[in-house]
Amino acid sequence: MSSDLLERFYQKDRLALAKVITIIESKAERDQVLKTEILNSIFGNPTSLRLAISGPPGVGKSTFINVLGQKLVGLGLKLAILPIDPSSVISGGSILGDKMRMQDLTMRDDVYIRPSPSSGILGGVALATRDVMLAVEAFGFDCVLIETVGVGQSETLAYLLCDHYIVLSQPGSGDQLQAMKKGILELADYILITKADGEQENLARKTKDSLKSLALGMPNKKPFIDLISSLTGKGISEVLTHLTQSHQTMIAQGALSKERTIKRHDFVRSALIENLAFRIAEMKPVTNDLVGKEETSLSLAIDERAAEIIKKIK
Amino acid sequence: MSSDLLERFYQKDRLALAKVITIIESKAERDQVLKTEILNSIFGNPTSLRLAISGPPGVGKSTFINVLGQKLVGLGLKLAILPIDPSSVISGGSILGDKMRMQDLTMRDDVYIRPSPSSGILGGVALATRDVMLAVEAFGFDCVLIETVGVGQSETLAYLLCDHYIVLSQPGSGDQLQAMKKGILELADYILITKADGEQENLARKTKDSLKSLALGMPNKKPFIDLISSLTGKGISEVLTHLTQSHQTMIAQGALSKERTIKRHDFVRSALIENLAFRIAEMKPVTNDLVGKEETSLSLAIDERAAEIIKKIK
Repeated sequence: MSSDLLERFYQKDRLALAKVITIIESKAERDQVLKTEILNSIFGNPTSLRLAISGPPGVGKSTFINVLGQKLVGLGLKLAILPIDPSSVISGGSILGDKMRMQDLTMRDDVYIRPSPSSGILGGVALATRDVMLAVEAFGFDCVLIETVGVGQSETLAYLLCDHYIVLSQPGSGDQLQAMKKGILELADYILITKADGEQENLARKTKDSLKSLALGMPNKKPFIDLISSLTGKGISEVLTHLTQSHQTMIAQGALSKERTIKRHDFVRSALIENLAFRIAEMKPVTNDLVGKEETSLSLAIDERAAEIIKKIK
Repeated sequence: MSSDLLERFYQKDRLALAKVITIIESKAERDQVLKTEILNSIFGNPTSLRLAISGPPGVGKSTFINVLGQKLVGLGLKLAILPIDPSSVISGGSILGDKMRMQDLTMRDDVYIRPSPSSGILGGVALATRDVMLAVEAFGFDCVLIETVGVGQSETLAYLLCDHYIVLSQPGSGDQLQAMKKGILELADYILITKADGEQENLARKTKDSLKSLALGMPNKKPFIDLISSLTGKGISEVLTHLTQSHQTMIAQGALSKERTIKRHDFVRSALIENLAFRIAEMKPVTNDLVGKEETSLSLAIDERAAEIIKKIK
């Protein structure tokens, strides 16, 4: 049955792809043999275009992806979209809303949209997201777009898995910029100010100037900062051109595989920590006796316990 | 010197309080003896009113805190405000903005505002935040208000440290509700729809209805859901009355100490994990050899490594 599934997978059967992803995300005991077989036989694409798009809810991620996605498939790329925003999985209505805004993409043969069920795979969100990415690439998609709300763990994960990190920001002065942690801005390869049309265009321009004045990035690698409008299409072709050209340059110069290796180091550490955190959370005896400690010595007790555990690992 | 510091602390010298908090947050080797002494001699207040206020940037947290805070001190409470939003520490301008919006509170003797420097205390944000809370309580503040952006780790931390968890939401239909993860809504004791004034009042009312229809909470413990306006004051007295009455009831019925103990179990686990994660991130040899693994077996390799580590701990 398993080799049959993989055979259908390599024959580009979409149902087999869906099944393979379900197995990858499964924690059920009965799926583990097949999962091991799958994980050992699918490989990612060393030159695929891996994008991540982060931004707070309401910034216009889905409409932007709808426009950018059409341009990407227009170049002949096969596009897989993997939303790893936990909220879009948990709160029932939002996936529908996202699909509405991506309706120009949902029915196409060269586009695949698969939300990551982050809530179901405790302790394994990072690994499952990466394995799903490798699976869609093995299936034939050569452009993977990871979508996140850009907060907390999912932002780091998206950054570590992609080649080009795109951060979307609302037009707005100081107050709204506060919404974006300096951390996420410093990771960004692209910072795009959305909704730069109509009455908001002036405000968007000011936001761009404020962002430019932050002097983000390294001396030799500044982020691409510009205005876009998913309504008028403004700025989006320029982003696409910059993206595809810099990707080709990275491939040609060997920088792509070098950067993927560097990011993989950090990815492995955070995936290991996530896995350990889940296992430790299940081990009540490790922490139960700490709860009874006197109020204020709790900090010292936890620090000591962590040090003891680490000593055993070393 | 150390006993001198604690003496001034108990004489209600605010400079001594600031110094004590600096020591609590310090990772410097030279501060550790004094820190241990401090942590072993300060105790929290078993009946204090511990509030947490979460909500996305721009929802109106600071203006709400400015209004609610004045009402709290009007009741004779001494109020300490601890923002643990990482962005308000990192991005330079925002603290100033927050203070502007809380200007009716900043100059008062019965109010203390101390942002948590989350970026500086790697691996110890949870513990440091709790210890600062205990310190301000030991100093005499009997109402502590933790403010967060309500995303990721800081949301869980705020929930575990407080007695009453208040979530602020913008007026807005489906789309904006998507912004709030079901997770955070299910933790909430209070869900307040902000800016319920002028043109937005109708939309705010619809948002309230949508939230009510989600049937959040437990059968015997439904969250308090209502509209507020920091501009007109609408709804805020009702929140205050409900808060203080339910707090008194919890004290009278012994529920307060029981709930604090339950939350402390989860807090200890997440603080231990945070501490371990930081220590593991520093241990390159634990993960370095994993990076070289074949692309797809990386997941299996990480899972195995985590299992090995846990076996050593047990």
